[in-house]
Amino acid sequence: MKTNKYPKLTLVGAGPGDIDLITVKGLNVIASADVILYDALINPELLNYASVNARKIYVGKRNKNHIYTQDQINALIVDFAFSYGHVVRLKGGDPFVFGRGQEEIAYAELFNIETAIVPGLSSSIAVPALQGIPVTNRGTSESFWVITGTTSKGQLSNDLKLAAQSTATVVILMGLNKLSEITEIYKSSGKENTAVAIIQNGSLPNEKSVLGTIDTIAELAAAEKIAAPAVIVIGDVVKLHPQFPASLTDWKYLLN
Amino acid sequence: MKTNKYPKLTLVGAGPGDIDLITVKGLNVIASADVILYDALINPELLNYASVNARKIYVGKRNKNHIYTQDQINALIVDFAFSYGHVVRLKGGDPFVFGRGQEEIAYAELFNIETAIVPGLSSSIAVPALQGIPVTNRGTSESFWVITGTTSKGQLSNDLKLAAQSTATVVILMGLNKLSEITEIYKSSGKENTAVAIIQNGSLPNEKSVLGTIDTIAELAAAEKIAAPAVIVIGDVVKLHPQFPASLTDWKYLLN
Repeated sequence: MKTNKYPKLTLVGAGPGDIDLITVKGLNVIASADVILYDALINPELLNYASVNARKIYVGKRNKNHIYTQDQINALIVDFAFSYGHVVRLKGGDPFVFGRGQEEIAYAELFNIETAIVPGLSSSIAVPALQGIPVTNRGTSESFWVITGTTSKGQLSNDLKLAAQSTATVVILMGLNKLSEITEIYKSSGKENTAVAIIQNGSLPNEKSVLGTIDTIAELAAAEKIAAPAVIVIGDVVKLHPQFPASLTDWKYLLN
Repeated sequence: MKTNKYPKLTLVGAGPGDIDLITVKGLNVIASADVILYDALINPELLNYASVNARKIYVGKRNKNHIYTQDQINALIVDFAFSYGHVVRLKGGDPFVFGRGQEEIAYAELFNIETAIVPGLSSSIAVPALQGIPVTNRGTSESFWVITGTTSKGQLSNDLKLAAQSTATVVILMGLNKLSEITEIYKSSGKENTAVAIIQNGSLPNEKSVLGTIDTIAELAAAEKIAAPAVIVIGDVVKLHPQFPASLTDWKYLLN
């Protein structure tokens, strides 16, 4: 069935999970969608804001089980845009932070489909924030470095080696199954006592987290059965977490 | 006048400027505020969503002209929370990305005031995204590093020296008046041809940007009279901008 509707693709970032942490614009775009292609990590309640007539198709993956490959998703976007009009690609977090959003935009534009993007809250910033960990803080950290734990080759990004030598707050997404590799890199830089937080299901009712140091975090995460999706935050800002144990360092929070 | 209302502080990130790029939760919190203390970079239209009875007080700064010092803002938060109830601290971007949000939370908690945070879209990610520049992209960049151009001492963060040697996408906030210093650091690393974008007033109708290289960007920004607030993005992902010229060598191109 062909449509008279104008073919369009809008990438929408759904944010970290809490339904109210999507943007106003993102919610409006969902309401205007003819088709929604959505990922595993979005809050499914968001689909209730779409038109009852909108097609809602799950194209996500869990672990390594892809329902569709990226090529197939790209093709679906184009097919649906020409068939039904406005395709909304709803992704967890922000579409341009390890979200492959650019690839989908570029593919659609090959077919002269109009594209737009509505950024979303990236878990890299929002998930630590909701736990009381600011990625930057005067006197503690002047920068933050967000790194993928799963590159296109499935490996931890090499950028972490330099990051471990820096004074930046380091945030690693999709890195939980590389945790021992990550802590080894920090140990080689003599940073056994650097503070680490791991937060699973950030912003959701089943949020769960552990606080520790490079030396202790792997054991703590295993004991607490922390699982993906999780955000790993490494650096002194983690000590600002209200539950960070004072015993782990001689550091004591004082107001600046 | 004392109130029976429960004293509370909520930090709300207003996002990069477009009124619809605030979160649904942020907008709801504004509507529930008894007092709003707002910064220069928030969209003033957001105040229309507050109760007509809410006190709305501007505590921002432009350039170096502070109306209130940070200590005074901290004191205002506490005074207003005890006098009127729910104080909403409305900040541009995200409150924990160079926003001094943690300092305000910590001060309020000294007085046992309940605190909460609603993250906002950080300009560091959202402003490049809205221009078609993803901070990460498969095969281009596996990480991004967000750095302040204005530390507590008013200086460019030293972290930039290491960042210039990395393969990370580098995003600098509040760095426009340090542009020549920034490009010098990249030149010392032999990166004259690295792509750079500077985006002023991102997400707003008066958005303005220039695209160039480390070698050309300062001249281009001056010619286009780019002014603060601006986001500086450095790295190969800038070449994904739809208007970035195919030829880097004889490059002379202005956007907008």
